[in-house]
Amino acid sequence: MKAGEIADLVGGALAGDRDREIRRVADLETAGPDELAFADGERALALAARSAAGCILLPEGASLSRQTTIAVPHPKLALIRAAAALHPESPVEPSIHPTAVIAPSARISAEASVGPHAVIEEDVKIGPGTSVGAGVFLGRGVEVGPRCRLYPRVSVYPGARIGSGVVIHAGAVIGSDGFGYVFAEGRQNKFPQLGRVVVEDDVEIGSNATVDRGALGTTVIGQGTKIDNLVQIAHNVRIGRHCVIAAQTGISGSVVIGDYVAMGGQVGVGDRARIEDQAMIGAQAGIPTGKRIPRRTVVWGTPARPLAEFKKIYAHLSNLPKLADKIRELSSRASRKRG
Amino acid sequence: MKAGEIADLVGGALAGDRDREIRRVADLETAGPDELAFADGERALALAARSAAGCILLPEGASLSRQTTIAVPHPKLALIRAAAALHPESPVEPSIHPTAVIAPSARISAEASVGPHAVIEEDVKIGPGTSVGAGVFLGRGVEVGPRCRLYPRVSVYPGARIGSGVVIHAGAVIGSDGFGYVFAEGRQNKFPQLGRVVVEDDVEIGSNATVDRGALGTTVIGQGTKIDNLVQIAHNVRIGRHCVIAAQTGISGSVVIGDYVAMGGQVGVGDRARIEDQAMIGAQAGIPTGKRIPRRTVVWGTPARPLAEFKKIYAHLSNLPKLADKIRELSSRASRKRG
Amino acid sequence: MKAGEIADLVGGALAGDRDREIRRVADLETAGPDELAFADGERALALAARSAAGCILLPEGASLSRQTTIAVPHPKLALIRAAAALHPESPVEPSIHPTAVIAPSARISAEASVGPHAVIEEDVKIGPGTSVGAGVFLGRGVEVGPRCRLYPRVSVYPGARIGSGVVIHAGAVIGSDGFGYVFAEGRQNKFPQLGRVVVEDDVEIGSNATVDRGALGTTVIGQGTKIDNLVQIAHNVRIGRHCVIAAQTGISGSVVIGDYVAMGGQVGVGDRARIEDQAMIGAQAGIPTGKRIPRRTVVWGTPARPLAEFKKIYAHLSNLPKLADKIRELSSRASRKRG
Repeated sequence: MKAGEIADLVGGALAGDRDREIRRVADLETAGPDELAFADGERALALAARSAAGCILLPEGASLSRQTTIAVPHPKLALIRAAAALHPESPVEPSIHPTAVIAPSARISAEASVGPHAVIEEDVKIGPGTSVGAGVFLGRGVEVGPRCRLYPRVSVYPGARIGSGVVIHAGAVIGSDGFGYVFAEGRQNKFPQLGRVVVEDDVEIGSNATVDRGALGTTVIGQGTKIDNLVQIAHNVRIGRHCVIAAQTGISGSVVIGDYVAMGGQVGVGDRARIEDQAMIGAQAGIPTGKRIPRRTVVWGTPARPLAEFKKIYAHLSNLPKLADKIRELSSRASRKRG
Repeated sequence: MKAGEIADLVGGALAGDRDREIRRVADLETAGPDELAFADGERALALAARSAAGCILLPEGASLSRQTTIAVPHPKLALIRAAAALHPESPVEPSIHPTAVIAPSARISAEASVGPHAVIEEDVKIGPGTSVGAGVFLGRGVEVGPRCRLYPRVSVYPGARIGSGVVIHAGAVIGSDGFGYVFAEGRQNKFPQLGRVVVEDDVEIGSNATVDRGALGTTVIGQGTKIDNLVQIAHNVRIGRHCVIAAQTGISGSVVIGDYVAMGGQVGVGDRARIEDQAMIGAQAGIPTGKRIPRRTVVWGTPARPLAEFKKIYAHLSNLPKLADKIRELSSRASRKRG
Repeated sequence: MKAGEIADLVGGALAGDRDREIRRVADLETAGPDELAFADGERALALAARSAAGCILLPEGASLSRQTTIAVPHPKLALIRAAAALHPESPVEPSIHPTAVIAPSARISAEASVGPHAVIEEDVKIGPGTSVGAGVFLGRGVEVGPRCRLYPRVSVYPGARIGSGVVIHAGAVIGSDGFGYVFAEGRQNKFPQLGRVVVEDDVEIGSNATVDRGALGTTVIGQGTKIDNLVQIAHNVRIGRHCVIAAQTGISGSVVIGDYVAMGGQVGVGDRARIEDQAMIGAQAGIPTGKRIPRRTVVWGTPARPLAEFKKIYAHLSNLPKLADKIRELSSRASRKRG
């Protein structure tokens, strides 16, 4: 692709060599003469001035004298667009590997691919353009929509429904039993775990993440939501659309999460908490059982507090030894006076 | 099943239509005329009054005028009993899938089932009524008792012993090497990890959980203990009977946990800590290395403290900015007096 | 092996029966007459005096009157050396299981072993003495060096490079896509995840751990570093040599970690943080985004602070209710005076 074509694709203003041949996207630091990079922020722009990249995406208003550049409103987003053109995903080659074990009643699109040692049980449906990786397990009645990508060793328990364009990374488990017990007669009695999981369109789920099915109802992961590695989603959780949930976060049973929620890594959310639209939860925060986090709130810490409050308390926390000294001083002065 | 039969089964008092046909258990919110639900607590009872459920389990003393109900001492437990009758687990159909790879010396009960692509090494024993899922790996000498259910892609390292009635969810790893190194001569030297894992009867282990074998001794998970998804159990840990350990909790090496202990999610327990019978550990708590948590204690926070103390401190923590203001005020007043 | 041979091997001073036959290493508590144990520290030495172990490794200066002992500078390290001789790893028997699916262009050493149901894609290279476990997936172009051990169900995405002597435990995923999105036009747009993973020599990676490949650059795990179960390593992370990272720790994108760093369990490290050589990070600590932890520093807590500071603050935290009482008292006394 020529630099000029990329500028047209991303709707940017080119400065420099319009015919420069670009083959790949790369980091500013390592990019070479046939690579496209992006720079945003002061530090990156300084780096960009010394970069050997063949072409650099810049924020509007910025410029570099010696390089071929494309000015755009959002350089990182423009890189995403350009990368999609420079590195198109290899199309799924329809095929069913002879070592896959497929139940006779499974309906697999003629345009899907099923990898070696996959196991596909009765009544499974797989849509066109979907690739099912090596060793994937799809339990009885699972439905997988079109254009999904299931990486190796994904396990999907019976009855789960997966929309279109869903990506599930290696080792993730979808639809396992929720964790619910009633203690009686000296032992833990398992509450029935008979519900389902629905993973809506364009969701991405990270490696070795786990999503439990509903106990009696349904666990839902809303459209466009992105879930990182090793995240745990418990039974009956309902997550809205276009959320991002970073690695190792755990969402307990019956939690409700709105749309456009962002959660840092290692967050813990207690049973039945409610996190409203566009809330942001800082890494390692703990949301107590039943707690409501209002729309657009930014919270931090355990138990989670609004960010401003959290910052104030933690500043005082650092001062605690000095405060204690001060109190001792005041106290002894008061005693002396009394004496 | 008729409502009257369910009432007999759970030992409850029926009010309403004894012949009502019930096919399934369901949530109060979604239950229809052929479904059984339960209600406990004020909010649920209000919901129950408007529920379309064919039959509702209620706590003794409660009643609903227009519905068929069964009054019992413990409605949720009664639902568990009824669900066991309405949704009996499908019996294991004895079979060995032709794609499973089974060592000649393995002894598999004629009443067990082994799924596609399972790999069963030398000297493994599998009891009757046990189902081994697709792609499960059982290393040399592993013993699995009767009536166990190993879901797809479970990996069990050589020598582990698994009791009867044990459930292990997809992707869990049992018996991997513990994490022990001695730093010397500029590198980490691995301590021998030669011990075993014993998983006692009626244990349940969640998806992608990991349980390491003992270094020289044995890692033990006691009878009836339930372990959620993504939990880590390190080498030489000994967990007692009928504990519940929620998702993403990590138990470090040589920790000893008593019976009937309950642990929230994302708890961290340091090396050689001791948690005594019936202790409760709040979510995200951190138990320091070597710490003892006495019998029946409820602890919370990092480092973990008794709940009452934790609550008091955290209440004051919120007040810290105000306390600091107060001190400043007292201090300046004191100075003025001196002046 | 005779006790005398072990003493020679570990360079220690034998006292007692030089011809004592030793077959295994064991715990002090359970060791029998043909087993070797070690004792270090007061408690262990007291235990050692009553141990039935056939031979005990002791620190120089210690002695036991009735047992065969070997005095060495570092008993635990000596046990590691002795265990290597008493329990030699079984050599890899070269073989390729007939159920493994291997692309024609893969180059597998004649001295490697490939287990049942492994899947090895185009252009993979596997070195001599390496064993690839049951159901392992190696994507296109993966290179695995000599003397590695990949346990069952490990998944390695295309292009990853694994050095020599690397151990990867069951279910670990190497090289999955990083978690990077740009929110625009009402949805999360995925940043290209096209980079690689390099796992250097002698690294060990725990069960169900996840290591993402670089977005555009490379994720590197340095020589001799040991990573425990369920750890998450995000894209573009660079970890130095001989680090130890305990279970369930999460390292966010572009973090740089030096050499000989030790991290407790459940630590969270924010994006682009820098942890310098020989730093120690306490369990459950949280390192904020972009934070630098200087060389040799020991930090604790969230947000992480130097250990001494952390201890002081937490001591005062426990005193907070008393401090508050004191302030109230001072305050009311001050008011009374004014009145």
